[in-house]
Amino acid sequence: MTETIGFIGLGAMGGPMAANLARAGHNLVVFDADRSKEIEVAELGAAVAGSVAEVAGKADIIVTMLPDSPDVEEVALGAAGVRAHGRPDQLLMDMSTIAPATTDRLCRELNEAGIGFVDAPVGRLVAHAIAGESLFMVGASGNDFGRVKPLLEAMGSTIHHCGGPGAGIRTKLVNNLIAIAVCQIDAEAISLAQAFGLDIATTLDVINGTTATNGHLVSAWPNKVLKGDTEPGFRIALAHKDVSLALEAAREAGIPMFAGAAVRESLALAKGDAAFAGRDFSALLDHVCSLAGLKPPRT
Amino acid sequence: MTETIGFIGLGAMGGPMAANLARAGHNLVVFDADRSKEIEVAELGAAVAGSVAEVAGKADIIVTMLPDSPDVEEVALGAAGVRAHGRPDQLLMDMSTIAPATTDRLCRELNEAGIGFVDAPVGRLVAHAIAGESLFMVGASGNDFGRVKPLLEAMGSTIHHCGGPGAGIRTKLVNNLIAIAVCQIDAEAISLAQAFGLDIATTLDVINGTTATNGHLVSAWPNKVLKGDTEPGFRIALAHKDVSLALEAAREAGIPMFAGAAVRESLALAKGDAAFAGRDFSALLDHVCSLAGLKPPRT
Amino acid sequence: MTETIGFIGLGAMGGPMAANLARAGHNLVVFDADRSKEIEVAELGAAVAGSVAEVAGKADIIVTMLPDSPDVEEVALGAAGVRAHGRPDQLLMDMSTIAPATTDRLCRELNEAGIGFVDAPVGRLVAHAIAGESLFMVGASGNDFGRVKPLLEAMGSTIHHCGGPGAGIRTKLVNNLIAIAVCQIDAEAISLAQAFGLDIATTLDVINGTTATNGHLVSAWPNKVLKGDTEPGFRIALAHKDVSLALEAAREAGIPMFAGAAVRESLALAKGDAAFAGRDFSALLDHVCSLAGLKPPRT
Amino acid sequence: MTETIGFIGLGAMGGPMAANLARAGHNLVVFDADRSKEIEVAELGAAVAGSVAEVAGKADIIVTMLPDSPDVEEVALGAAGVRAHGRPDQLLMDMSTIAPATTDRLCRELNEAGIGFVDAPVGRLVAHAIAGESLFMVGASGNDFGRVKPLLEAMGSTIHHCGGPGAGIRTKLVNNLIAIAVCQIDAEAISLAQAFGLDIATTLDVINGTTATNGHLVSAWPNKVLKGDTEPGFRIALAHKDVSLALEAAREAGIPMFAGAAVRESLALAKGDAAFAGRDFSALLDHVCSLAGLKPPRT
Repeated sequence: MTETIGFIGLGAMGGPMAANLARAGHNLVVFDADRSKEIEVAELGAAVAGSVAEVAGKADIIVTMLPDSPDVEEVALGAAGVRAHGRPDQLLMDMSTIAPATTDRLCRELNEAGIGFVDAPVGRLVAHAIAGESLFMVGASGNDFGRVKPLLEAMGSTIHHCGGPGAGIRTKLVNNLIAIAVCQIDAEAISLAQAFGLDIATTLDVINGTTATNGHLVSAWPNKVLKGDTEPGFRIALAHKDVSLALEAAREAGIPMFAGAAVRESLALAKGDAAFAGRDFSALLDHVCSLAGLKPPRT
Repeated sequence: MTETIGFIGLGAMGGPMAANLARAGHNLVVFDADRSKEIEVAELGAAVAGSVAEVAGKADIIVTMLPDSPDVEEVALGAAGVRAHGRPDQLLMDMSTIAPATTDRLCRELNEAGIGFVDAPVGRLVAHAIAGESLFMVGASGNDFGRVKPLLEAMGSTIHHCGGPGAGIRTKLVNNLIAIAVCQIDAEAISLAQAFGLDIATTLDVINGTTATNGHLVSAWPNKVLKGDTEPGFRIALAHKDVSLALEAAREAGIPMFAGAAVRESLALAKGDAAFAGRDFSALLDHVCSLAGLKPPRT
Repeated sequence: MTETIGFIGLGAMGGPMAANLARAGHNLVVFDADRSKEIEVAELGAAVAGSVAEVAGKADIIVTMLPDSPDVEEVALGAAGVRAHGRPDQLLMDMSTIAPATTDRLCRELNEAGIGFVDAPVGRLVAHAIAGESLFMVGASGNDFGRVKPLLEAMGSTIHHCGGPGAGIRTKLVNNLIAIAVCQIDAEAISLAQAFGLDIATTLDVINGTTATNGHLVSAWPNKVLKGDTEPGFRIALAHKDVSLALEAAREAGIPMFAGAAVRESLALAKGDAAFAGRDFSALLDHVCSLAGLKPPRT
Repeated sequence: MTETIGFIGLGAMGGPMAANLARAGHNLVVFDADRSKEIEVAELGAAVAGSVAEVAGKADIIVTMLPDSPDVEEVALGAAGVRAHGRPDQLLMDMSTIAPATTDRLCRELNEAGIGFVDAPVGRLVAHAIAGESLFMVGASGNDFGRVKPLLEAMGSTIHHCGGPGAGIRTKLVNNLIAIAVCQIDAEAISLAQAFGLDIATTLDVINGTTATNGHLVSAWPNKVLKGDTEPGFRIALAHKDVSLALEAAREAGIPMFAGAAVRESLALAKGDAAFAGRDFSALLDHVCSLAGLKPPRT
């Protein structure tokens, strides 16, 4: 813990994360554009800097936890930022959720200035950040990963080293796309259950015992499509039929079902391709890959 | 087991189901428009009828397992069908997956002829049907449920009594909508992971430890939105930001992402409503309900 | 005008249409389930029937103008309907907007009873129906078209003979899909103009001088894609870029843009196919046809 | 014509545009990163610069016609660009199609350096650019518009002054969104016509006489919704019915109809709002505005 840690961005997530670093005894210097946010972590022993430039001057590792791509870009590459006021052998660890293209540019331009780069966006909720139980998806070289690991361990309880720089933010976007899109799907489907007058507790009891929530990714896909096996358990053509019936019922019930409708047309697209219509519905992965000109993943 | 069971429709699912009834010792009379499909179950001791009318004449309970709504309608209500050739106190149990509006009409018109009606569509795969391990979602009055229960127990291992007639097929459509739509979401997201060059096994390892696959319906919703608690853990406005970043990356990677795009616009819609933008993303349920003029479900 | 015309369905459109037949001197017998709707046309000299069956007994040509598929099905094929109470050499002309599959069944089953069938759904608005200026899209054999033409001329000012039975309703669905979907597109785009703070009159002045409203179908397509010429004037890849910029601006402006988003992904799909990315954007027609396994149309 | 015109970007559109400036006798200095593209316009008398900086040093008005936002940003604001090497009272006219947010930043930052800014993206096709018959959508102050007008007149035949800086690019995005989205709608609908087996020439003859292609924006909206009149000619609820029938037919025909499906759900959304269901379908404009929290436009 001999390295000085700079922490820029002390918002709803960043504040508790910095506090946990301070509590773990890290030598900390912090900055937030809203100076009032520095008070709490200062009381835990952190030094307060007057500017990003001052953090860049003092810290060995600089952590950024900021709202969006332009904020991180400004702090890292701006005239008053880390590159301009830092030095070789520093490391910037961006924990914000930003565009991967920005992450890549930050990494490239900082590296050109001799500054290392790690992306380590944060999973889970504010409550977990406060409790030091966050999840981190880390993109880093092996050496850099070792250097930031003690910090991550002070702030969270689950650390995934996803690959080299850029792999952390990309893993987060894939993860959150699924988590959020599934929430919208659930919202549309349970609204249909409500319109149907079903008992919701009973309905959940049923759903929670099927692949509807057990997750294709947990067990079905690793043993099927990801092994290259798309022998039909449940054919794409049948999936198209079932979703069409649900959509028709939603129409009658007056439920706008935007995600469901897009799924239905996606199934129509796959069903219209002779190579897919009769395949297992897990082959939707191969279908989307084929549309995108990608080799489908196999594990 | 004193009742005679008629079974109409001996296809990929119906054949093994009827065979399990025969093996369990039920007194069985079967029919399929494709007569060759009757051979296997006949060898297990089932009588073979020459027509639907003959089944209707002989059976106490008639099971239908047919491709689509018009098929069941023809068998149940057609000139050569069950209503025309059956008798009061018979029971028709439709196990097909059909439109709920058709289910309701079948129930009503058969009831008017004194014939009982149960809908009991089948979950899980052909392999489960063969093994007698199907899942059934049953819509039935209490009495009728008791009457068909021994049959269901001979054919499957999980039996959900979802409510009165019509509740079985409705539960199945809700369940399958989720199971299938989630599969399409997964296909789009994992294709993005592939385009990103992520290691898929590592990515799955991350995803399978978050709400992406643990399922909102298993634990999050029952303790949050379904209790009326939409205090933000993860705000809808933030969900909109993250999905927008994923969509932008998909655009750059050349992945058509129809379901993801519809989800993004749905989030824009919710975010544009002051009552929802700052709520937890589980409040998407309440948002869709509000769009549909429904009271949101609470358990 | 020696034939007796039955008219069933005297609603917002049907009432004025029947009135125009009466004014033109046709021998008319009318029925509506809501008996109060018969008064106006009776005052113009039409006889009032007590039932569909009575209309079927008296009329040579029976016109139906009803809300939806099941209504027409009941009137045409029900126990109290035209088939049951009519006679060979009658003609039923359905002017309702219903499912083409129903139209085909009506035609087939009426023909089997020796009764002719014409579909002639109505374009334009109630005001046009009142003024006798409706537009009709007619599916009929040559003989039947001649037989109904005097009626159509009494009710409207534009008559398209689109092909044999079923071609009228199909043409209407294609036409209305375009008219309505374009309205939604316009709504999304002009909302964006409003969010941009543009002067709407100036914006319309610009738009109304480009292919945005001149219509691909009026001049561009007949001379390009429909002649098999997809040499790029404006490439699909460029169309994808422009719509992506508009979508990004809509995201920033907080406009949910569901149709625009689906268009964007459709362009991503076409752009991802090497056979289409560099083609003129009119080749989207060939792309959708190829997805559907159809030979693209050429004129 | 005493001002020296710099022209940066001599691609498929920029090349012919610069050539037309040269032919009109403008004093021209040009640059393209691909030096071979300068030959043609040099033969027409243009001077060739060795860099963007040289153009910035010599020209009074600098025109940019580049592929995308980052290209224009680099040329305008980069270390080797216009701001760095130009001088007050110069004017940069960007004719590229880029993100409006970038346009706004360019304008602001150039203005801070005393350099004027005009956006004037180009409509119509390459053939029109060659013939000097392009269409321009111009965002400029009144003075700047006067200054660039002679240039625009040398390059095109239709010039719209859409408003202040930024209004040109915004008008283009709205215009192109409509032009392109309508093309996709037409592609889906005419594919349906093809699947229906309709004669396409006859179908076009019908469509081209209705609001399907006459354009809501040309006549219907200016006299209806834009005047605040949404009395129903054709109700949103009926539009929802018709599009649902078309979607159902597309499902049966195996045509994936992504845009049509999103339109259908948008209509379901509007129909579910009591304030809109019974309104004229032109009120879709007011509906989208209400979803986006915008005051609907009135002219």
